[in-house]
Formats: sequence, structure tokens, C-alpha cells
Amino acid sequence: MSPTAARITAVDTFDIRFPTSRELDGSDAMNPDPDYSAAYLVLRTDAADGLEGHGFTFTIGRGNEVQAAAIEALRGHVVGRSVEEVCDDPGLVFHDLIGDSQLRWLGPEKGVMHMAIGAVVNAVWDLAAKRAGKPLWRLLAEADPEWLVRQIDFRYITDALNPDEALDLLRRGREGAEERTSRLLAQGFPAYTTSVGWLGYSDEKLTRLAAQAVADGFRQIKLKVGADLDDDVRRCRVARAVVGPDIRIAIDANQRWNVDEAITWTKALAEFEPYWIEEPTSPDDILGHAAIRRAVAPVKVATGEHVQNRIVFKQLLQAGAIDILQIDAARVGGVNENLAILLLAAKYGVPVCPHAGGVGLCELVQHLSMFDFVALSGTTDDRVIEYVHHLHEHFLEPVAIREGHYTAPTAPGFSAAMRPESIARYTFPGGTFWAADLDRKKGKAA
Amino acid sequence: MSPTAARITAVDTFDIRFPTSRELDGSDAMNPDPDYSAAYLVLRTDAADGLEGHGFTFTIGRGNEVQAAAIEALRGHVVGRSVEEVCDDPGLVFHDLIGDSQLRWLGPEKGVMHMAIGAVVNAVWDLAAKRAGKPLWRLLAEADPEWLVRQIDFRYITDALNPDEALDLLRRGREGAEERTSRLLAQGFPAYTTSVGWLGYSDEKLTRLAAQAVADGFRQIKLKVGADLDDDVRRCRVARAVVGPDIRIAIDANQRWNVDEAITWTKALAEFEPYWIEEPTSPDDILGHAAIRRAVAPVKVATGEHVQNRIVFKQLLQAGAIDILQIDAARVGGVNENLAILLLAAKYGVPVCPHAGGVGLCELVQHLSMFDFVALSGTTDDRVIEYVHHLHEHFLEPVAIREGHYTAPTAPGFSAAMRPESIARYTFPGGTFWAADLDRKKGKAA
Repeated sequence: MSPTAARITAVDTFDIRFPTSRELDGSDAMNPDPDYSAAYLVLRTDAADGLEGHGFTFTIGRGNEVQAAAIEALRGHVVGRSVEEVCDDPGLVFHDLIGDSQLRWLGPEKGVMHMAIGAVVNAVWDLAAKRAGKPLWRLLAEADPEWLVRQIDFRYITDALNPDEALDLLRRGREGAEERTSRLLAQGFPAYTTSVGWLGYSDEKLTRLAAQAVADGFRQIKLKVGADLDDDVRRCRVARAVVGPDIRIAIDANQRWNVDEAITWTKALAEFEPYWIEEPTSPDDILGHAAIRRAVAPVKVATGEHVQNRIVFKQLLQAGAIDILQIDAARVGGVNENLAILLLAAKYGVPVCPHAGGVGLCELVQHLSMFDFVALSGTTDDRVIEYVHHLHEHFLEPVAIREGHYTAPTAPGFSAAMRPESIARYTFPGGTFWAADLDRKKGKAA
Repeated sequence: MSPTAARITAVDTFDIRFPTSRELDGSDAMNPDPDYSAAYLVLRTDAADGLEGHGFTFTIGRGNEVQAAAIEALRGHVVGRSVEEVCDDPGLVFHDLIGDSQLRWLGPEKGVMHMAIGAVVNAVWDLAAKRAGKPLWRLLAEADPEWLVRQIDFRYITDALNPDEALDLLRRGREGAEERTSRLLAQGFPAYTTSVGWLGYSDEKLTRLAAQAVADGFRQIKLKVGADLDDDVRRCRVARAVVGPDIRIAIDANQRWNVDEAITWTKALAEFEPYWIEEPTSPDDILGHAAIRRAVAPVKVATGEHVQNRIVFKQLLQAGAIDILQIDAARVGGVNENLAILLLAAKYGVPVCPHAGGVGLCELVQHLSMFDFVALSGTTDDRVIEYVHHLHEHFLEPVAIREGHYTAPTAPGFSAAMRPESIARYTFPGGTFWAADLDRKKGKAA
């Protein structure tokens, strides 16, 4: 490497918050008033190509400044590194970050610090994919299986998946990949929509949006449940009547219940044939999910958006606790850890149906599912990516939904970059929206 | 409550770091160079008594500023509250903090944000005990069982412990409490020492310190293991030769191993009759600990210092994964969550042997074990509190060890308050020690 090789020169961070609580978009049994937010970062380099790496953690408002501070704490691990070196092997950054013994104490591998690591790692992948001139899903799907295996940290998961098994899964996954790439580009990847069923919506709004979702080509919708059983019975009845027997209805309790409540409540809604019950209880409760799954079958059990790392996913699979594994692109340690989780799911034969929504989560996670389809699981059967319709307008490469499918991105990168004008407007508290909001409040108070 | 009732007026935070890495105190297989640190807070009030509440999270250096920022994010939940109200019922603050739906997204109930909640909650208990004129262990041991049950959040643990069972355990625990209080005040609570066996110490130093520990009255010592098996065999042999067959030797791998490595390595050390293997693998791996325990018996399996919350402890007990439960005073959501964990341990009949050391962890956790002895488990059989000899000089009420026992604190409060001169010296980076250190480094660089 030449002494003048390009370096990463800066990690710029932004505390970006959208005032979503004012519309009850995103309301559920545990999150009555989220302000969808992102602790956002930009990796800058002195390379002649001028490319940047973008990444973020999604939060729902308060505490976003803590998440941004956690990203800043990682700056020293990234600034000064060779751009070529980290883009050739993003695993270097991932291993270095999760291996920092002092930072590890703040997790280990969970919560604020782990999500910050995921944001930085994802930004490196964004940069790597841009430099390669490929959308991330394609970079991953076309990568050498041995190189992919080296991207994974097998610590704490070898009792479920070892490097040889991972290599074998990836090699088998490559068979027929070209044909699937063509199919993906032509047809996209199936989506389901949560935008019909927020808890704060009226029955009238639910009816209208559910009918529209079916007309738009979605084959699955999702309703939030868990605040009041009578309401849930009524809303499930309304939704089933609107969509008919052939559209899947998933229900989502957002961790509202204890184990026994989850069982009772899910059984009380069984007559409406929910396809899955999502987050019936704490994401930490592996044995609890296993008990719930045994009790509520044939309703399937799904979780993952709040599962902290590969170690908990490993156990959910080992314990037979879930029917559906829901990865999140910005909760665990980035692409590297999600590769491990996708491989674990493939090993156990459990379909991956990602969590999305929030800020930019649809944009990111579509790449992981598309890689999974093209070069690992090889199928979209029983696989759907969550879709929520808001906040895409803030992204430079927003997701495109066509006939209930995510269209495969073709632009190089991880689709992570937000529009500069959105960053300027919604940075908290100094952006133009929040500054004006503060002025209004001061005016009212005066 | 009168309109002029005293209020909490401020939450002052401090990023305090001690340069322990320079002596290899605290070195182990995962933490080669910790700088023991505290994200520290002081609750101030406008009450005439002038009392303050102190609390902290222990970290090992980098990222302590993130932890301090997380404590600051909680300020709005505490400032302005009635001192009397929160001291009469610290559970109000605990429920409010873990129930903040936006902050919850950053865990939930794990990592940086949850530890920050624990620090604030512990500061409230410190203030409450000072106002009551009792050391915290005594306040808890003399509290009405029904009031104690109301301090607990049973969400996600009712499948293992419900409020009625908790009440029953606490009522039975009170039988004979007066006699045990007298015994505790006369004899103290058994300790074991880790100060002999840091990984960075030479065999000569290990030999000298282990002999001294036995002479000082300790009946258990602990060695760090997991970096190199040949070294571990040699060090265990040295230690066993020094202490003889009757002193317990615990070994501690600090999460270094995968499940299969943990089993192989522990069996390879079995000839030296280790009493327990501590943190053999990831603290998140409930099923892994269960597999290890089945394989390495009669060596006991211990973990807990990095266990994130009551939900993981619940499963460790449900799965029969541990012989020894190691609470930490500053990892989970403070006294309230530790009450739940102590009750779970009592329900399952598993002895609690706290993790301590670090900065101030001995000072805090002794109160929880003493409460457990006096008013819950009723015994010190097979119960020992970890003791590490460094950094106590920075506390106003440091622990006192006599003949291998913790002396029961008699001063009101939670023993959490650091000396003002230590705070002034070791606040990072502006305190006098760090400022001078920076000057030295600049001088060398010039």
C-alpha cells in the first residue's frame, strides 16, 4: 500500500429527529408516541472518488443524543484507516470494534454501544459497495463464499454453526444464483405492510387502508395488538372481513405481555387466523418464546427486531422458540453480524422476514433479504420484508414498492444516505424545523 | 404534601477514571488493560437536611463519557420530584425510568441505558437510606414485606415468580431476622478475594498473595484463567499447593470461551478441584451455560456480573444453567431489579455470591448480600462476596474486611459516596491527575 493511499478522514455524526408522534404513525402497545429518529454518521475520506459511507442507528426519540455520543466514541477506531483496506475487508473494522475490551464492558454486544458499532460497520459496507459500483445485496451475493465466512465472528455460536458449515451453506446457496438475480430484478422481493394497522388508527382508517393494501398487491398485512383485548378482537374481525381469507394477517404485541398473557391473548385472537404473533414478550426471553410457541400453534411465533445479537438468535433457534426470524439491519453489529444470523437461520431452516419501518430500515434491510434469496436460502417462499410507507422521502435512494414487492436497488451502496436538506431541517435541536418549533413554543409560553 | 416540600434540584454527573491499567490490576483474559472508571452522579435537593444521593455505573475506561451522557438523559425524570415521595417509594422512579417508551428502544432493559437507570435508582436508594438514618441493608431488612414487593417490576418474570410467592418468601425470610442482624453485626459476611490472581501477575506474586490471603482469614480465592491453558494449569497447581486442600479456589474465564472450549478447558483444570468456573462463555448464552454445567460437574458454574437483567437471570435459573448466581450492584436497574433477582434465586434455591471489585462495587453490593442473609435466604452457607482490595480509599465509607469477612456498614446510606478530592483529581479529562498526565505526554511529544 502506498504511503499516499486514501484514508478515512472523519466520522461526522448527526442527531436527526422527525416529529412523528404528532400523527400517531408508529403507535403501538409499548410505544404510544414515538418520534422516529436516527443517530446518523458519515465517513469521509480523502480519496479522489469523493465517495462517503453513510450509516445510522434508528431510535424513537429521547436518548438519540446518547446513541450519537456512542458513535462518536468509536471515531478513534476508524479515522486514519486505509480506505482500500477496510473496503476490501469490512470485517477488520467489525472485529476491532467488538473486540475493544474497554468498550465491550458497556454491553457486551448489546444495547447502545452495540448499535453504534452496527451503524459504523454499516457505513463501511455502504462505502465498500459504492466503491465496488454495486448495490450491497449484489456485492454480497457475488462475493467469494470464503471471503464471506471471514466476515463473520463465530465466537459464541460454534455450538450451532461452525465456519465449515457456513462455507458449505454459502457454496450451496450460490447454485442457481444468476437465475435468481434475474428473477429478483424482474419481480422484486415480497413485502407486507404495517402501515394499515397502527394502534392509534380508527376502525374506519383501518378498513380503508387494509382494502387499499390488498388493491395495491400486498398479500400480508400486520395489526398492532396488546393494549386492550376487546379492541383487538374488534380490529382483527374488521381486518379479516376486509381482506378475506387468503391474505395473511400478522399481529404484533411489541413485547407487551408476560408469557401466560401472551398465550391467553393469542388464543383469544386465533379465530381470526393470525399468521404470526410478533414480539409476544421480552426479546430476551428465549424460554418464554419457546413456551408460547408450544401453546399457540398453529399461530406462528416471530421475533427479532429487538434481539440484541447473534447469541440470542442462536438460542431462539436451538430452543425451537420461533417460526419466523426477524432480522433488523440496525440493531445488531451491522452487516457482519447479520450474515451470521442469516446463516444460523439457513442452518435451522427458519425463514427470515425482516423488521423494517422506522427511519431508513426498509432501505437497509432489503439488501440483506435480497442477498439471502439470491445466494443463501434460494427462495422467497414464506419470506416477506416489512414495509411501512413513511419517511422514505428523506432518502436519496428510497425503496420502491411495486405490486406488493420491493424493487431491487440498482444504485451502488447500501441505500443509507439521507438527503442533505432533510439532515439540515431535522437535526435536533438546531435544525430549521426544531429551531422554529422551539420558537413557536416560546411564543405560546410568552 | 405541602407546596414547599423539598424537591430534587439537580443531577450532577462526573466522568471519573483511575489509571489502573498501568499496574495490571484487574487484568484478565478479556480485559488486558482496564482503566477502572465510574460514570458518577449526585442527586441534590433543596431539603434542609442537606443530604445527597450518590450513585454510579462502573466501566473500565473508554466509553465512560457515553455512560455519563446516558445518566444525563435521565435528568428530566428526576429533577423537580418530591424528595419525600421518591424516598418513601424509590420504585416510582424505577418504574418511570424503565417505562419511558422512547428510552426503552435503546435497550430494552440492557446495556448503557439500563446501567444508567441503575445508577440513578441506586442514588435514590442512597438518599432514602440516609434520610431513614440506616445503612441500606438494614432499611431493606426492616422494611415491610408488602412494601418490598411493590418495589419490584414483575413484568416478564411471572412465569417463574409472582407477587404472592415473593411476599411469601419475604415473610418467611423475616423469621429470626433479629438474631441474624446481631450475628451479622458481630461476625460480618464471608468474603473471598480475587486480588491474588490477576492474569498479569507472576507466579511469585501469586504465591505470596495467596499465602497472605489464607493468613488473612479468607476461605476462598479466585484465579483468572482462559488466556493460555498451560499457564492456567501451572497457576492452578501453584495456587493449590500454597493454599492446601481446604481453601476453595474459584476460576474465572471472563467469557473467553465458546461452549465446547469451556468444557474442555474446565475439565483440564478439574484435577486442581476448582470450586466454580465463572463466566465460562457469553453472559447471554443461557443454553450454553446449561450445556457447560451438565458437562463439568462437580465443578460449579457461576455467572452474573454481565447478565443484563432479571429476565436473563430468570432463564438461567429455569434452565438449571448455574449453581451460583452472581449479582452486580451496578449492572442491572439498581436495587429494585436486584430485589427481583435475589427473590428469584431464593425461589430456585441457588446461592447468591455477588460480583464486586471495580470502582465501589464492593461498597454497594455488600448491602444486598447482607439484606439477603438477614431477611431472605437466612444463611451465609456457600455465600461469599467477592473482594478486591483496590480503590476503596476513594470512598467516604470504604468497606472494612476483618478475618475474611465484610464488616456490616453502620453509617446511613448505600456507601456510594466518593471523596470530593478523588472526584476532583480523577475526573476525566479535566481533573488534576489527567490534566497533569496530558501535560507530561505533551512534554514528551515536544
